[in-house]
Amino acid sequence: MQLGMIGLGRMGGNIVRRLLRDGHTAVVFDRDQGAVATLVAEGAVGAASLEELVGALEVPRAAWVMLPAGEITEATVQALAGLMVLDDIVIDGGNSFYKDDIRRAAELKPKGIHYVDVGTSGGVWGLERGYCMMIGGDTAALDRLDPIFKTLAPGPGTIPRTPGREDRDPRAEQGYIHAGPSGAGHFVKMVHNGIEYGLMQAYAEGFDILRHADSTDLAESQRFDLNIGDIAEVWRRGSVVSSWLLDLTASALAGDENLESFSGFVADSGEGRWTLNAAIEESVPANVLSAALYARFRSREDASYADKLLSAMRKGFGGHQEPK
Amino acid sequence: MQLGMIGLGRMGGNIVRRLLRDGHTAVVFDRDQGAVATLVAEGAVGAASLEELVGALEVPRAAWVMLPAGEITEATVQALAGLMVLDDIVIDGGNSFYKDDIRRAAELKPKGIHYVDVGTSGGVWGLERGYCMMIGGDTAALDRLDPIFKTLAPGPGTIPRTPGREDRDPRAEQGYIHAGPSGAGHFVKMVHNGIEYGLMQAYAEGFDILRHADSTDLAESQRFDLNIGDIAEVWRRGSVVSSWLLDLTASALAGDENLESFSGFVADSGEGRWTLNAAIEESVPANVLSAALYARFRSREDASYADKLLSAMRKGFGGHQEPK
Amino acid sequence: MQLGMIGLGRMGGNIVRRLLRDGHTAVVFDRDQGAVATLVAEGAVGAASLEELVGALEVPRAAWVMLPAGEITEATVQALAGLMVLDDIVIDGGNSFYKDDIRRAAELKPKGIHYVDVGTSGGVWGLERGYCMMIGGDTAALDRLDPIFKTLAPGPGTIPRTPGREDRDPRAEQGYIHAGPSGAGHFVKMVHNGIEYGLMQAYAEGFDILRHADSTDLAESQRFDLNIGDIAEVWRRGSVVSSWLLDLTASALAGDENLESFSGFVADSGEGRWTLNAAIEESVPANVLSAALYARFRSREDASYADKLLSAMRKGFGGHQEPK
Amino acid sequence: MQLGMIGLGRMGGNIVRRLLRDGHTAVVFDRDQGAVATLVAEGAVGAASLEELVGALEVPRAAWVMLPAGEITEATVQALAGLMVLDDIVIDGGNSFYKDDIRRAAELKPKGIHYVDVGTSGGVWGLERGYCMMIGGDTAALDRLDPIFKTLAPGPGTIPRTPGREDRDPRAEQGYIHAGPSGAGHFVKMVHNGIEYGLMQAYAEGFDILRHADSTDLAESQRFDLNIGDIAEVWRRGSVVSSWLLDLTASALAGDENLESFSGFVADSGEGRWTLNAAIEESVPANVLSAALYARFRSREDASYADKLLSAMRKGFGGHQEPK
Repeated sequence: MQLGMIGLGRMGGNIVRRLLRDGHTAVVFDRDQGAVATLVAEGAVGAASLEELVGALEVPRAAWVMLPAGEITEATVQALAGLMVLDDIVIDGGNSFYKDDIRRAAELKPKGIHYVDVGTSGGVWGLERGYCMMIGGDTAALDRLDPIFKTLAPGPGTIPRTPGREDRDPRAEQGYIHAGPSGAGHFVKMVHNGIEYGLMQAYAEGFDILRHADSTDLAESQRFDLNIGDIAEVWRRGSVVSSWLLDLTASALAGDENLESFSGFVADSGEGRWTLNAAIEESVPANVLSAALYARFRSREDASYADKLLSAMRKGFGGHQEPK
Repeated sequence: MQLGMIGLGRMGGNIVRRLLRDGHTAVVFDRDQGAVATLVAEGAVGAASLEELVGALEVPRAAWVMLPAGEITEATVQALAGLMVLDDIVIDGGNSFYKDDIRRAAELKPKGIHYVDVGTSGGVWGLERGYCMMIGGDTAALDRLDPIFKTLAPGPGTIPRTPGREDRDPRAEQGYIHAGPSGAGHFVKMVHNGIEYGLMQAYAEGFDILRHADSTDLAESQRFDLNIGDIAEVWRRGSVVSSWLLDLTASALAGDENLESFSGFVADSGEGRWTLNAAIEESVPANVLSAALYARFRSREDASYADKLLSAMRKGFGGHQEPK
Repeated sequence: MQLGMIGLGRMGGNIVRRLLRDGHTAVVFDRDQGAVATLVAEGAVGAASLEELVGALEVPRAAWVMLPAGEITEATVQALAGLMVLDDIVIDGGNSFYKDDIRRAAELKPKGIHYVDVGTSGGVWGLERGYCMMIGGDTAALDRLDPIFKTLAPGPGTIPRTPGREDRDPRAEQGYIHAGPSGAGHFVKMVHNGIEYGLMQAYAEGFDILRHADSTDLAESQRFDLNIGDIAEVWRRGSVVSSWLLDLTASALAGDENLESFSGFVADSGEGRWTLNAAIEESVPANVLSAALYARFRSREDASYADKLLSAMRKGFGGHQEPK
Repeated sequence: MQLGMIGLGRMGGNIVRRLLRDGHTAVVFDRDQGAVATLVAEGAVGAASLEELVGALEVPRAAWVMLPAGEITEATVQALAGLMVLDDIVIDGGNSFYKDDIRRAAELKPKGIHYVDVGTSGGVWGLERGYCMMIGGDTAALDRLDPIFKTLAPGPGTIPRTPGREDRDPRAEQGYIHAGPSGAGHFVKMVHNGIEYGLMQAYAEGFDILRHADSTDLAESQRFDLNIGDIAEVWRRGSVVSSWLLDLTASALAGDENLESFSGFVADSGEGRWTLNAAIEESVPANVLSAALYARFRSREDASYADKLLSAMRKGFGGHQEPK
């Protein structure tokens, strides 16, 4: 089927490619006309503006916005909706905040425009591996878009089937789900990323402990000089902690066991924060997911005010003078 | 080659089976002679005592102790060592504390007995999938035992090779490593389990947030009634959080989405605690691994004294009376 | 001077009393006319409605809303503002969310009505000890209200002066500060409560460790049967952990060392959550304040879904069956 | 009465001074004979060696070791015990590990030498404020030493009595307790310090949030430029978070609100670690006390290996390149 795509960055461009390869057609727009030209060369129809893109789509239309979350997505969704009519579908496939989805869907409903939010996992690997998609919206819109989702999803591949799922929604095994009404897709993706932070931090702390097994804080007879890269590799094979993140870790460590190409500064992209906000709203304890996010905050500070305050107190009660 | 096995529980019995299937021979002992008989029926040589087991092994001997960690393992290793001679090998494949390994190896060294500690991951799946092994000990002993480890390990299977490992120790890709001197195997396995706790808790918190997405604490328009089982399944397919633990989670949720067969009481087996002790000794921050262990501690309490103290303070400063 | 008070609960009633005792006058309203009658008997002027209260106040008016945070406060502030005129002052002394203050102040500004938010600490002890107040609003309004704040605040009392504060705002030593523009008062009070949660949890964990010093998990020679009440008392005297919260703890333990009158269920009142939201917005790590809030969440659950999921995974990989 | 003191540093020297001022006598030794001379000038009897000190003490002797915990304390206690006889008392007033106390007491018991461990809080303020003491040992020894403890303790001072303690051990109100057998004193002091870390971190995080209330991460209308020093001061007056640590904080901030004289490096002295080890041994959740310790560990690292590993994974799945 035909899909409009707004935003041809790393994610949007590859989504179009994966669709084209499977026989779908696409009308594409990006503020960077070079990105448009690249995809036109690969078989897409180019558009020089949102208006042109909307004009080039057959009704009822389906247009996917794939932009960095935030103001630019909001503005684009609003502009797009202004150009659309009854029964058209606006898709936000970025990492938007689910409460924005709920609001937007309610805003578009009186005009009869469907709003579909797609939480999309897969990163730079999605073109080849397929995208895992968590989708919010009404059933009519999802049914219409099903050929798109089927193409983008990884499909069952060689991953063993989960026993006991015979009577369940078969889309999950293909790699996409209808999570619920608008917002549900990004909500589930948000928690996915919150978990991702937690998993990453669990590995990070564990490997840090392995790394410091030769610490001079330890008695000499109890120190080990471990091969971190071999450990990551062996855990991929039959151990309880095997995972795709571990595969990536093993790969990174194979090339640079000391990780010297990294500064230690770790960014975060919003979903981890929203996950905690959700946990707090729901009164759900989330010590691990919180600690994972805070570790990233801390990685971006040199000398923290909090730590200085500890030193000030220590000096106050004990006369302790910290080394510099 | 020939191996002696002491302890024929879930792990020890299956290790013997996997060895027999690959053409090795085994002399087996367990206090439960029924367990011995079962394995004799499958081709092992049975022994009625430690002494008989040692007597039935060809020199230089190799005997694997596979018992629950703690006093029984210590007593058995000591008794076994008392029966062994120069160049024999004692293997502890259980979940022993690595400092015990270091001590034991030093104790056995004057007698010329090799001490090898094997951290073994694989659980009930090891018989079919193979065991991921992290091994501590001297090179001579490991070289001698290599046929055993090769059989027990999963082998490369269908897991893609990690790029960049071409010049590295090929054993890691088979599923076992020589981690270092005695104690190093259990040290690495200990941290493995610490990470395991952290990964599990990250999933647990995330699914708990999904589960409570319909909480009445939330505004009605912002609640979702999510299908937890489908979410676990879809994340197995192309998402960043895919892992073996997630596979198991999807499987559990396929049968019982409400997890009603579980009480919420969660045991721990020691390695999580030792991992924290190691982090503390090394001055490595480990908030996630700690929180994961503490969640298990908390799961085993009904009403905690700490919580009651909070209520007592709240009553003291604010006159707050908690609901019961 | 004259103050209007809306809300005569534990806090509002005592604030009026403390003002009356120091020669101020008050016009009071509460939906419970019994509460009004009680304060009229103590010298206040009663009002049967918001309108009557506003009518009874001399212009420029000052009226203090002291209601549980949330919808009732919002509605009352809006109704009150509707009755007020240029140069009147609306005070919200409850535990409102600071972003609501910012919004309300902006809404009232075009009408020339001042909006003052007062974070008020002191609880049931405030009548005698005085109230610690963190105040947001414009300087003109605060100057006008200064006699009120001076009376309500504890004053310097016997608390030693902090060296080096000679040239600083003397109001802080009296027990009240002008924290900044509207919202700043409740922001500072919010963080105050966040810290309060953290301090309480630090004591709670410590006393829990003392309490379990006789645990059978410990070697028998390393157990202690400690007198928790005496420990709380002795720490009040010259130790680094002395505090008002510890005074209250010692008092609670003097009467009931086992805290048997408490169920272990611990409520939270919102500020702890908002403090975490602020930390997350500011990218400030807050592991301790988070853990303190999550402990309260956890105290209110019997068997958590998260814990059950851990058991499901343990059964999946290890065949572990948890005890019930 | 007469006391021997070994170790005349900040703590030991002032303890002797406080005793001399109250009419006790002291025989003192330090490897630094200058420190001995200073105290001789103040009325103590000097000793040039442990042997001389023991010789100068009247039997039954009482000698207090006040040295940094660790090897030097162990060696001194052993040497001292070797010089002592039936009914003499060895006191360890430093921050020793309580399991060492338990062992030492057992070692000295056959010789009839009493071993008393004193957890001593008070820091540089103890000379004037008195020392809060948590004491382990047998009743006979504590009774004999009671005049010493009475002098060293703060006494009731102006701190209000805790209601309901009328029938309880009056020593707690003086500022010292008999916590239990040998080891109990240091155990209680250890948990005291664990709590201290937690309290400090709660304040540190809260002030950090206040400090960043003007962060450009926040919407401009929601930023506050707060006076941190005034906030610390006002909280001393009638608020729930008032404490001695807050007094010290207010004092530090009065002089240097930006805390520019501190680097952010924060040391720890062992008790926080031991407290966690105890919590882990007892199966008591301790997220706050753990996070407090880990914050100090983290403060001492520039770029952590754990953080670099996070970046490596982010690059692996998303192609993210962290800023440096």
